[in-house]
Amino acid sequence: MVDVFATPKLKRLYEAVHTFMESEIYPNEARWFRMPFREVEAELRGLRDKARATGAWNPPIAEAEGGAGLSLLEFGQLSELLGRSPFAHLAFNCQAPDAGNIELLLQHGNPAQRERFLTPLLNGDIRSCFAMTEPEFAGSNPIRMGTTAVKEGGEYVINGHKWFATAADGAAFSIVMANTNPEANSPYQRASMIIVPMDTPGFEIVRNIPIMGHTGEGWHSHAEIRLENVRVPQANLLGPEGGGFMLAQERLGPGRIHHCMRWIGICERAFHLMCQRAATREIAEGRKLGEQQMIQAMIAESRAQIDAARYLVLHTALKIDQAGQRAAAMDISTIKFFAANVLQQVVDRAIQVHGALGVTDDTILSFFYREERSARIYDGPDEAHKASLARKILKGYGLKVWRSKGH
Amino acid sequence: MVDVFATPKLKRLYEAVHTFMESEIYPNEARWFRMPFREVEAELRGLRDKARATGAWNPPIAEAEGGAGLSLLEFGQLSELLGRSPFAHLAFNCQAPDAGNIELLLQHGNPAQRERFLTPLLNGDIRSCFAMTEPEFAGSNPIRMGTTAVKEGGEYVINGHKWFATAADGAAFSIVMANTNPEANSPYQRASMIIVPMDTPGFEIVRNIPIMGHTGEGWHSHAEIRLENVRVPQANLLGPEGGGFMLAQERLGPGRIHHCMRWIGICERAFHLMCQRAATREIAEGRKLGEQQMIQAMIAESRAQIDAARYLVLHTALKIDQAGQRAAAMDISTIKFFAANVLQQVVDRAIQVHGALGVTDDTILSFFYREERSARIYDGPDEAHKASLARKILKGYGLKVWRSKGH
Amino acid sequence: MVDVFATPKLKRLYEAVHTFMESEIYPNEARWFRMPFREVEAELRGLRDKARATGAWNPPIAEAEGGAGLSLLEFGQLSELLGRSPFAHLAFNCQAPDAGNIELLLQHGNPAQRERFLTPLLNGDIRSCFAMTEPEFAGSNPIRMGTTAVKEGGEYVINGHKWFATAADGAAFSIVMANTNPEANSPYQRASMIIVPMDTPGFEIVRNIPIMGHTGEGWHSHAEIRLENVRVPQANLLGPEGGGFMLAQERLGPGRIHHCMRWIGICERAFHLMCQRAATREIAEGRKLGEQQMIQAMIAESRAQIDAARYLVLHTALKIDQAGQRAAAMDISTIKFFAANVLQQVVDRAIQVHGALGVTDDTILSFFYREERSARIYDGPDEAHKASLARKILKGYGLKVWRSKGH
Amino acid sequence: MVDVFATPKLKRLYEAVHTFMESEIYPNEARWFRMPFREVEAELRGLRDKARATGAWNPPIAEAEGGAGLSLLEFGQLSELLGRSPFAHLAFNCQAPDAGNIELLLQHGNPAQRERFLTPLLNGDIRSCFAMTEPEFAGSNPIRMGTTAVKEGGEYVINGHKWFATAADGAAFSIVMANTNPEANSPYQRASMIIVPMDTPGFEIVRNIPIMGHTGEGWHSHAEIRLENVRVPQANLLGPEGGGFMLAQERLGPGRIHHCMRWIGICERAFHLMCQRAATREIAEGRKLGEQQMIQAMIAESRAQIDAARYLVLHTALKIDQAGQRAAAMDISTIKFFAANVLQQVVDRAIQVHGALGVTDDTILSFFYREERSARIYDGPDEAHKASLARKILKGYGLKVWRSKGH
Repeated sequence: MVDVFATPKLKRLYEAVHTFMESEIYPNEARWFRMPFREVEAELRGLRDKARATGAWNPPIAEAEGGAGLSLLEFGQLSELLGRSPFAHLAFNCQAPDAGNIELLLQHGNPAQRERFLTPLLNGDIRSCFAMTEPEFAGSNPIRMGTTAVKEGGEYVINGHKWFATAADGAAFSIVMANTNPEANSPYQRASMIIVPMDTPGFEIVRNIPIMGHTGEGWHSHAEIRLENVRVPQANLLGPEGGGFMLAQERLGPGRIHHCMRWIGICERAFHLMCQRAATREIAEGRKLGEQQMIQAMIAESRAQIDAARYLVLHTALKIDQAGQRAAAMDISTIKFFAANVLQQVVDRAIQVHGALGVTDDTILSFFYREERSARIYDGPDEAHKASLARKILKGYGLKVWRSKGH
Repeated sequence: MVDVFATPKLKRLYEAVHTFMESEIYPNEARWFRMPFREVEAELRGLRDKARATGAWNPPIAEAEGGAGLSLLEFGQLSELLGRSPFAHLAFNCQAPDAGNIELLLQHGNPAQRERFLTPLLNGDIRSCFAMTEPEFAGSNPIRMGTTAVKEGGEYVINGHKWFATAADGAAFSIVMANTNPEANSPYQRASMIIVPMDTPGFEIVRNIPIMGHTGEGWHSHAEIRLENVRVPQANLLGPEGGGFMLAQERLGPGRIHHCMRWIGICERAFHLMCQRAATREIAEGRKLGEQQMIQAMIAESRAQIDAARYLVLHTALKIDQAGQRAAAMDISTIKFFAANVLQQVVDRAIQVHGALGVTDDTILSFFYREERSARIYDGPDEAHKASLARKILKGYGLKVWRSKGH
Repeated sequence: MVDVFATPKLKRLYEAVHTFMESEIYPNEARWFRMPFREVEAELRGLRDKARATGAWNPPIAEAEGGAGLSLLEFGQLSELLGRSPFAHLAFNCQAPDAGNIELLLQHGNPAQRERFLTPLLNGDIRSCFAMTEPEFAGSNPIRMGTTAVKEGGEYVINGHKWFATAADGAAFSIVMANTNPEANSPYQRASMIIVPMDTPGFEIVRNIPIMGHTGEGWHSHAEIRLENVRVPQANLLGPEGGGFMLAQERLGPGRIHHCMRWIGICERAFHLMCQRAATREIAEGRKLGEQQMIQAMIAESRAQIDAARYLVLHTALKIDQAGQRAAAMDISTIKFFAANVLQQVVDRAIQVHGALGVTDDTILSFFYREERSARIYDGPDEAHKASLARKILKGYGLKVWRSKGH
Repeated sequence: MVDVFATPKLKRLYEAVHTFMESEIYPNEARWFRMPFREVEAELRGLRDKARATGAWNPPIAEAEGGAGLSLLEFGQLSELLGRSPFAHLAFNCQAPDAGNIELLLQHGNPAQRERFLTPLLNGDIRSCFAMTEPEFAGSNPIRMGTTAVKEGGEYVINGHKWFATAADGAAFSIVMANTNPEANSPYQRASMIIVPMDTPGFEIVRNIPIMGHTGEGWHSHAEIRLENVRVPQANLLGPEGGGFMLAQERLGPGRIHHCMRWIGICERAFHLMCQRAATREIAEGRKLGEQQMIQAMIAESRAQIDAARYLVLHTALKIDQAGQRAAAMDISTIKFFAANVLQQVVDRAIQVHGALGVTDDTILSFFYREERSARIYDGPDEAHKASLARKILKGYGLKVWRSKGH
């Protein structure tokens, strides 16, 4: 927490969540890492009542909807705490991609959709996924998409090929991006979001994609999906037809800052381990690792970078709270690449300080190292965010730069 | 300014100072750079009434003492504006080293000292300097010092060799650090601060040190000084005898953050020039420099770094305002090395974007490049601040690291 | 190969090995990655005759000993080729740690040791391991060691705790470092190397250490080992008693450059994949990823770094060939940290250019990313090599810096 | 020198030049820095006989033309020595831009041009300059040029605006790039090189451009030039009409590597000063600066980078010697940006190690810091070389990337 941004409510929840993590999460972490992830999910569901008791269930969701009603600025500070363990967000029902799907359904779901899909999500009774990225098209250019949804007799018939559908394995439904209006003038108005139950015929998880040496399963997985003549009622359209791109933008903005907030937590965890190691590892009679200046440099640079990333993220959250996501577009791009790079560097240094131990699975560092290499890629690679930020800045200087030929 | 930190008073002064800079500073800058600095000082004195009229004269000094009464957080934001030109701080009487000397005299000056030295400083009628660093001793280890002040018949007799006494040329007096209590047990209680009028016999400016190709003069200079049997009344002792180190710490903390605040202003100026160039420079028929992704990367990375440095600096200012300098010691070390590195990198990129023009004196960039290379050195080199920060962090993990053998 | 360093013999072998890799290695690589490693080892043994037929079996070993008789400079260039696949060194019997053990036995093995241990190693009939590092002591300080070997009735009785014994799983014997002469004046003369068959009672592989998410097995493993009253004949002493440290230095020098040579191969593989992706991945209608300048920057910087690392490594090999390992001590330290960092950066960029595909196991990049994070740690972390290099340089300027208090 | 590349001839000259520098250059350097540069030039002319006596006069020029006849690989190693002082190249008549102009005249000068312009250049009796860059056009795109040369009655009438004509002040003639064939189909065949004596009416040095705080003069200057109806005989055309671009390429390739060779010398000088300071500066009782690990890291990283840059440069020289400049185009781009960055970083670290002393003019470091910031810009900025290198690499992967729209 940052003093000037710590509301009484946040302080209360922070304390309760901290206690929860000390008693329920950290002591089980090493064990959970050795278990099949499906079983971990079951255990985490068993902690649900304790998690609700903290008052922090569904932290960023309005109290009227059954959430904790935190502002983004408050949630950002709580997220840093949750981010310290890869299991904590799931325990509080604010994990990706469900958190984003919940937002979409809250904003755009009609009553029937809310009842059938949103309510069980908010209760943590089901999980969902989001199928947008396609292997054949660069993810950094979201308007190019091969999946189509054609209207036929009150239904959409969907065909396509998706991948990186996080947590599809075990999900109850997917929100699928598909071209419904290929004839629309603007490429930004061709796609729609459609809710597809996972058991719909023709909807096939081809595989959980092996990533960094692991296939993953359950919530901790990323699926490749084939849709072949998948038929869902037109009533499953989420938001306006042709509004998929707009909704995706709405969804990705908060999604990005949610990631950034979580990364600060990972950074703090790695930083803590690095300092602990430096302070206790003996390198010669009576001499500790942390007395070495090269180690000190890693610690100091990490501290500075983490603090810098934290303030950038929290001020962005504040701006979104006050002026909305669109007003903070440049800030969101900034934090996405800045924080992801800090994350990679801090985790890397923490490993280095641990020496051989750092590459083993005897600490959590190697998990972060592998798992979060994708931070600089998902939700837009560094390069896309840098280019986007610079283009917006240069527009203020009268230069209009197109993203690339063709649009 | 940062919305959440912008008080009504700050907004008012910011606006007034902005107008002042647009009308009095920027239009004269190129001309001033071609003039002997003594003449520039005279012109700036001529602007004093206009500067006072903005209400921002002596910005961080209490209103009761004739200042604008800004908090450090407010002053930080105003400093970013002043920092854009190397002449602006002088116009508002908040230049180093006078700003620091004013603080010292406000805190520790007795009535006679205040009348004789502080009042004319606050009025901008005289300038002062600060003589601490010695060529023979590493500046990063302030307790080692060769200058001595021996009491003899109501006077101190001072002998020593100093350098990097900023703005000594033309100053009315110097605050000199000298060992008065060599027998004190703690090396931190051996030195005292003594006020020495520049015209005291034996006090000699050996030379203005040539720095980055220029000897400098007047306010824009750094002197090497010899003190040979310099005699001043014991009444010129500032603060307690043996308290020099403590006072220096008090002085350097705010001094460091003042520099950081100013650097953000330099960064913004360089960033602005870089964007302007990128947006307008044609590299091929109908194609501007800013359309190149490598240029965009430089712009985006600079924007992120400047924002990061700004938030770090402003939150440090806030902490000092609320909890005092000592509570913010780690934050001050952090911003000192973080902001200085951002400064160097942003100015360097701005030069690169300007191509050959960037190394000429046709823009202000080459001045910043030369002048502020020392930012990573003065008031403690990067390495000292990193080591200091890490040691303090590791102390929290139970590791007590001494600075070096011998103390 | 580098023209000026390409001997006719090297050219011939390079060509033959290249053909072997195209026909036997690359086509099987993806399949092997999905197999248990023990089975891969069996398949590789099946390729042995074809490997021998290239003439490159045991590349750096003298022809008289059944090797290809390459100089280190020649082997360095061949290693770049072998390094492109993690399976190729094993196919040619020049994998770590056997290559180093072979060198030790060649230099210091008595006839009985050569017959029993060296001959089958050279034939690829058995594998071996090397047990030096201990979890309780910092690896960067090899003179601190807890393992002891006490003479008792013609035998050594060994007790200790080792880890990171690469490829212990399935090895026939281990070379174990143990303190035999604790009373020796110099800490550098206390340890000895002793050959211990893996089936000796009391020698226990506690576990294959899980590293970067995988436990490993067979050659692709790193064991934790307990030695409890392990008894071997004193005839198993390798080299002189108390000479363990000296032998380790002899072994590690070539070991380090062998790694560096292999890394250049990994870099080239990653670079090739990066360029291929950049040249073919469409990011917009008719526009390829490689047309983006930020991608071009990654390619150009990688090319420069790889070439730089290659020349550093080859010139070091040449110096060792001509003047011996000791003469090249500074060069070896230099390439160890320089090349390891280039490796990490090039692989990281290749992943970034691949986007989401880069973190999957659909390319080999994620394997290199995980597997070679330890390159900056094993055989001395970056920090140890930098400090060692600087100390040697500064000694030339009259400054004698000890490694740390106590020795 | 690098053992494997040190010919007997090089060793002999290297030794002689080393002695010359020890006796004639270093002892005068500080004094020369305080003198007007015109007077330094005069003193250097006075050393000419001694310089000739070393045998290294005009080092890369064929012996038949009055040079030392060094290969590029040999000259590269001698250049490192000369590069240590900014005055040494001039002493041996191999300074830019004359060295490049000599090459042009050797390759393309007709007998009359050789007699009038080349012979006195080779003798060091006159200096020359090269006027290509124009302030209105990006230097990284050499085919865009505003200067025109129109044929009129046996003469060329030249009009245009140039800048960064190095050493124009005091030169006897300039080689001027101008569009002579605006109608040519290929933009690469529109410009020609024309020899223009500096005293030709209409040829005006507008100013010596102030760079990094200094206006410069004589050889140490960069002029802005106006050409207004400058008339020279058509016989002053150098090489074929329309061949200016081709000649410029020929000239720039060696020019680039000459710079890189010189930079290694600067790096070694800075490295030497850095080590000397680290080894001798006391930071506490009995403790030297070089015992600090952060300083050691700077030393080790610098050593590695300098060695890497050296090998890259020397192998490029070797390739040019053996296969010609065109074959080494990618290598030249690589060394240009790689070595320039190493140069900047090494000088920067050397300053940092010197602390406050480092930014003064009491060492040569601040001169290198200012003077060579342009290394990353002149003869093509980093960005242009990186893009060029990557485009050539990607062409090998089937991707043809144009430099930019329009050509």
